[in-house]
Amino acid sequence: MKCIKCRGKAQIKLPRHNARFCADHFREFFYGQVEKAIKKEKMFSFNDKILVAVSGGKDSLVLWEVLQRLGYHADGLYIDLGISDYSLRSKKLCEDFAYKRSLNLHLLSLPDMLGMGIKGISRKTRRPPCSSCGLIKRYLFNRFSLEFSYQVLATGHNLDDEAATLLGNTMHWQTGYLSRQSPVMPSNHLSMVKKVKPLYRLTEKEAASFAFLNEIDYILEECPMATGASSLIYKNALNYLEQNSPGTKQQFYWGYLKKGKEYFSHAENGIDLISCAKCHQPTVVETCAFCQLLEKIGLEKITLSSNSSTI
Amino acid sequence: MKCIKCRGKAQIKLPRHNARFCADHFREFFYGQVEKAIKKEKMFSFNDKILVAVSGGKDSLVLWEVLQRLGYHADGLYIDLGISDYSLRSKKLCEDFAYKRSLNLHLLSLPDMLGMGIKGISRKTRRPPCSSCGLIKRYLFNRFSLEFSYQVLATGHNLDDEAATLLGNTMHWQTGYLSRQSPVMPSNHLSMVKKVKPLYRLTEKEAASFAFLNEIDYILEECPMATGASSLIYKNALNYLEQNSPGTKQQFYWGYLKKGKEYFSHAENGIDLISCAKCHQPTVVETCAFCQLLEKIGLEKITLSSNSSTI
Repeated sequence: MKCIKCRGKAQIKLPRHNARFCADHFREFFYGQVEKAIKKEKMFSFNDKILVAVSGGKDSLVLWEVLQRLGYHADGLYIDLGISDYSLRSKKLCEDFAYKRSLNLHLLSLPDMLGMGIKGISRKTRRPPCSSCGLIKRYLFNRFSLEFSYQVLATGHNLDDEAATLLGNTMHWQTGYLSRQSPVMPSNHLSMVKKVKPLYRLTEKEAASFAFLNEIDYILEECPMATGASSLIYKNALNYLEQNSPGTKQQFYWGYLKKGKEYFSHAENGIDLISCAKCHQPTVVETCAFCQLLEKIGLEKITLSSNSSTI
Repeated sequence: MKCIKCRGKAQIKLPRHNARFCADHFREFFYGQVEKAIKKEKMFSFNDKILVAVSGGKDSLVLWEVLQRLGYHADGLYIDLGISDYSLRSKKLCEDFAYKRSLNLHLLSLPDMLGMGIKGISRKTRRPPCSSCGLIKRYLFNRFSLEFSYQVLATGHNLDDEAATLLGNTMHWQTGYLSRQSPVMPSNHLSMVKKVKPLYRLTEKEAASFAFLNEIDYILEECPMATGASSLIYKNALNYLEQNSPGTKQQFYWGYLKKGKEYFSHAENGIDLISCAKCHQPTVVETCAFCQLLEKIGLEKITLSSNSSTI
C-alpha cells in the first residue's frame, strides 16, 4: 500500500477519498481539511482570540493542537463536570496537554461552583444527565467566552458527530433544527458568541489517527453517563452505511449543507432571543434554563473566575 | 402476555404501538390499517378495477388477500422475469394462491415476450440487473393496467420499503425524489395509471405475521439478483434504529409525509412527461427507456396479451 502523494509506505487508508497516505502526507491532508473548513466557512482569522472547548477526548485536543500549529491564538477551557474518576482523568489529560505545549488552559468546576456534579444536578432537577450536561456546558462556554473576551468558541465536533445529529434531526423531521444546523453558528444576540466546528470535514477515525500520529494522549472511553445515548445509536447506523458505501457520511452531511438545508430556510426555528432577566444571557423565556436550574439546586447566581493553568 | 383488546392470549407484540394482540385482533388491526391507508390517501373506491402487482413475495400476496377480503375488485398480474428456479417457484405460488381463492391472475413472461430473462437483458444492455428489472416492471405494469382497463395499480410496498427509499433519498439529498415520494402517485399523463401502496402503514414483520396467520404461502428468499442491493442496506440500518427505539420507522416516514415533504415542494422534479414516439407510453425523452432497451436487444415493439389463469 503506497502513499498517493509520495509513493512511500502508506500508513492510513481513507476509503471515502479513495486515498492512502504516509504519516506526513496524512498530517498535511488533515491540516488542509481544517484550513479549508476555516476559510470556506469564514470561521475566524489570525486576529481573533479563540476559545477551544476541551473535554480530554481526542477531538477537542486534536483541534487545539491543529489550531496552535496553524498559528491561531487558541486557549482552552475545561469544565470539570464532577463525574468522579472520569472527570479527574480527563482533566489531568487536558492539563498535561497544555503544559507540554505551554498553552493557556482555563478551568471551571461544577462541584466548586454549584456544590455538586452532573449526577447530583440531574437528581435535583429531574433532568436526564445528558440534558443537564448539554445545557450547562452551552451556557458556561458561551458566558465564559464573553466575559473573558474571546471572539469565537471552537468545539471538536467532527463529521461523525455532525452526521449523527443530522440523522437524528432528519429521522424526526425537526425542521427548525434542519434550518440551522451548521459548522458555523453566528452570534445572533449581543450576549452570544460565534460558535464554530473546524473538524466538520474530518471523521472520528481520522481524528483518532491524527492523535495517534502526534502522540496526543486522550481519554479513550465514552462518558459513563452517556451509555445508550441516541447520538451513539445514530453513529453506529451511519458507520454501518459507511462500511457498505464509503463516503456516505460526507455525502449526507456535506450534501445537506450544499443542497438540502436551503429547503428548510423558512422553517419555524423559534430563535427570537431576549436577555435573561437574571443573568442577561440569551434565552427565549424570561428566566433562562440555566438560571432555572440554579434555582432548583438552591442557588441564586454564579460568578465565573478562571482557575487558569500554565503560561 | 395478553391481547390489549380482549385480554385473551396475545400472539403478536407490536412495540411501535406499545400493543399486543391475539390472532383475531391482529387481523382486525391489519385490515384497519389498510382501510385507513385507502381512505386517508383516497386510493380507490369499490367501483374501481384494481390491478395488484404480485411477485410471489409476502407483501404483494398479503395485499391481494386483504383487498379481496375487504370487498374490492382486485386482479393480479405476475411477470415472469426468467430468473430460473426463483421465477418458476414464485410463479407457482401466485398461481396456487389465485386458484385457491378463485381470483383472476394475469401472467406475462419476459422469456416469451423478449426472448430472454433479466440476466440476458442486463448483459445485452449493460445495465445492472435491478435497474433493468425496475424499468421493465414499471413499464409493463403501467401499460398492462391501461390496455386492460384497470383504474389503479396497487403494489405491496410496506413501511420498511418506503422508509428505506426515503432514507436513501435523504442520504443523497435527492430533493426531486423527496418532493414526490408518496403512498399515492396520481396519474399525470393520459397514459399513466394511478399507483398506490396500501401497506405503507404496516411493517414487513407485520405483513409476515399476517401471512403466517392466514396460511399464505410465499417465497421466502430475496431475489437472487438483489444481493447487496442498497435498499437492503438501508433496511438493516433502519431495523437497527427501530430496535433501539421502537417507532423510528413510522416516525421517519409518516413524519416525512406530515411535515417534511412540504419543504421540498418547489424542488426540480423533472416530470414534464411527453408520449414516447414509438409506444406512446409516458417518457421524458423522445423514445422511452423501455423502447431503447428493446432496440438494444434487437426488438422493434411488443404486444401485451394476458395469459390469464383461473376464473
